[in-house]
Amino acid sequence: MSQPTRQQAEALDARDPLAEMRARFDPTSVDRDGRIYLDGNSLGPLPLGVKERLIETTMGQWGGDLISSWNDHDWMLLPRTTAAKIAPLIGAGPDQVICGDSTSVNLFKTLSAAMKLRPDRSVVISEIGNFPTDLYVAEALLSSVGGELRLIDDAETELRDALAPGDVAVTMLTQVDYRTGRKLELARTTEMVRHFGALMLWDLAHSAGAFAVDLAGVDADFAVGCGYKFLNGGPGAPAYLYAATRHLDRAAPVLAGWLGHRRPFEFMPDFEPAEGVGRFTVGTPPILSFAALDEALNVFRDVAPARLTQKAQSLTELFIACVDGFASDHGLQLASPRDAARRGAQVSYRHAGGYALMQALIAAGVVGDFRAPDIVRFGFAPSYLRHVDVWDAAERLRRILADGSWRDSRDHPRRAVT
Amino acid sequence: MSQPTRQQAEALDARDPLAEMRARFDPTSVDRDGRIYLDGNSLGPLPLGVKERLIETTMGQWGGDLISSWNDHDWMLLPRTTAAKIAPLIGAGPDQVICGDSTSVNLFKTLSAAMKLRPDRSVVISEIGNFPTDLYVAEALLSSVGGELRLIDDAETELRDALAPGDVAVTMLTQVDYRTGRKLELARTTEMVRHFGALMLWDLAHSAGAFAVDLAGVDADFAVGCGYKFLNGGPGAPAYLYAATRHLDRAAPVLAGWLGHRRPFEFMPDFEPAEGVGRFTVGTPPILSFAALDEALNVFRDVAPARLTQKAQSLTELFIACVDGFASDHGLQLASPRDAARRGAQVSYRHAGGYALMQALIAAGVVGDFRAPDIVRFGFAPSYLRHVDVWDAAERLRRILADGSWRDSRDHPRRAVT
Repeated sequence: MSQPTRQQAEALDARDPLAEMRARFDPTSVDRDGRIYLDGNSLGPLPLGVKERLIETTMGQWGGDLISSWNDHDWMLLPRTTAAKIAPLIGAGPDQVICGDSTSVNLFKTLSAAMKLRPDRSVVISEIGNFPTDLYVAEALLSSVGGELRLIDDAETELRDALAPGDVAVTMLTQVDYRTGRKLELARTTEMVRHFGALMLWDLAHSAGAFAVDLAGVDADFAVGCGYKFLNGGPGAPAYLYAATRHLDRAAPVLAGWLGHRRPFEFMPDFEPAEGVGRFTVGTPPILSFAALDEALNVFRDVAPARLTQKAQSLTELFIACVDGFASDHGLQLASPRDAARRGAQVSYRHAGGYALMQALIAAGVVGDFRAPDIVRFGFAPSYLRHVDVWDAAERLRRILADGSWRDSRDHPRRAVT
Repeated sequence: MSQPTRQQAEALDARDPLAEMRARFDPTSVDRDGRIYLDGNSLGPLPLGVKERLIETTMGQWGGDLISSWNDHDWMLLPRTTAAKIAPLIGAGPDQVICGDSTSVNLFKTLSAAMKLRPDRSVVISEIGNFPTDLYVAEALLSSVGGELRLIDDAETELRDALAPGDVAVTMLTQVDYRTGRKLELARTTEMVRHFGALMLWDLAHSAGAFAVDLAGVDADFAVGCGYKFLNGGPGAPAYLYAATRHLDRAAPVLAGWLGHRRPFEFMPDFEPAEGVGRFTVGTPPILSFAALDEALNVFRDVAPARLTQKAQSLTELFIACVDGFASDHGLQLASPRDAARRGAQVSYRHAGGYALMQALIAAGVVGDFRAPDIVRFGFAPSYLRHVDVWDAAERLRRILADGSWRDSRDHPRRAVT
């Protein structure tokens, strides 16, 4: 794409089949004072309906009907019913997915279960640049149950050699790199891992809701993902996990709790896992957070995931094309793959003054984020962003770089943002 | 107490120093159609202010300020600030308690950390009647890291013999039995466990908010507890965990995640635990559920925990005295200790038709619950119940038994209630 014009962006919006999804979000999130929100890969905005759902859950159900709400308002079913709304976004059947806990805890549950399914092997492969919680979960688990964490720099080029010794129990990878937006090829990677007799555990934190994922199609063993990024379920929303049907009645996590029991209300002293994916439930689900996530997922009703893929590619391509016009003049270096098929709904650049630059951008109403040491990161959620937002964000970036005003932000105190 | 009159109950209320706490709850929960809610040991009612806090958290913070809320609205601090409100209720310092995850997951974290602190021993003691999730957590952990679960029938009488071999790493007990309301003596039990060189892990699910607990005073090693029972934090509210100061910088759970890292936002591949109790945080906290719990805990502001103890004893004594007048005529058998010092804020009876009896009671506006095979269970939360509620509940129970109408409920379908 040559240097795009705003008119071209408008034309792309005019024929965007997902254009109406934006109206499923609360204006306070997506239409506020010209703010362009490119951080939905960290915390998705507020969908319409969530506020009303929370008020009803709090006042009518908890406050009004109290304990009977577990049955009368189907609270007990929420881990399943919420998961059933996520299932089509990741190419899974509704009986293969369950919601609850955090992504970290779900990683622990699936990784520990997967290792027990390969008792003859004890190596776990991951990438050294994987999101740290994935590595911490693996380190702590392996230090307790035994095993070796084999870290590679780049799964695209080094995975085969790491698998070759034939001693790998589980390969645990995050499909989209949280810094660069690099997207691993799901089918090819899974096939290679399984070819070497290992189990494949995917972290889909930056995948579901951003583009189509077909877990069952590629025959992945396990997966986990996050409810509060592209799924817009609210801060710290319940996470989810997926298990292949062939593992459902054999998998036994190291972490088991009462709501994963076959008959929890018989209060038996011995653990008998529930049939199917419900065995991965542990404690009592946080209903208020569940209500928000369950409601938020209605944003994706009637949306073909392939359309999300197309739009995320279109948005990120437009941004790269716009920034290409001025990047080299200002020391911006594309950190994401140029090939859209190798990129999630995210574009990152390296810049020596990245932190100050992002502060200036945020002050100018373009909300992305910064990742040390030098990455500015922009998420392009296909569910609420328009091509004109992308064009306008690039234009504000261009102006800030051109007038040098971002250098004034250099001394702002550095602050933590998830 | 001889057969109490309603006037006597009124007189007790007139001099109740906690009487004004009831006004800190939403009328939809505590003043609805004559309903008497005796199931706050399962799900506490809705405190005032929670609804407004949730709306502000959802609309103003999440929806309006989006990602910057993690800093600007101190979301990142909630696991600590919420825990600091629980600390005085359990006799802990604010730096010894952290909120998050479920009680089950916190049991896993503390039990696994405690076992690592006694690497030379591998036995865990618990009661066979402990709440099942406690046993499931221990079974699954021990089956993976090695070790033996030694179950005793009654900690009051059998603990010493079980500890005597000197091979016990951890004793894990729930202070108040969820079926009978029996309350273990915190100081004596902890002292005995530590005398035999084991670590003491308390489950305070039915303790905090119901009566005073002094963890630091008895020098307990670890504790966990539940946010949604007597703490009224909402369905599935975040749980909490306590660790003694002497363990804070040595304890290393099997389950570690990014927010337990010393510097989470430097995204380092190796896990370095945070200083202090923050190392037990794993994933991103569920902010909506946290907001409700944090607000709900204001119910206990300026309340001396010893007053909770006194009132819980007064309420349960009154109930037992009332029911004593007709229990033996109708096959009701007290399952809770008669000695108030050995009883939590709960009274249970055995009755051959317990399930149907409880259904009839609920239909008559007295909400308790049933636990198989034959226990009817009544929770007496000192924060919102009046002595007249207790008297009226006993009177409705008497009438239902006297007219035999409860037998008509016998065929109602049995339903699951947490």
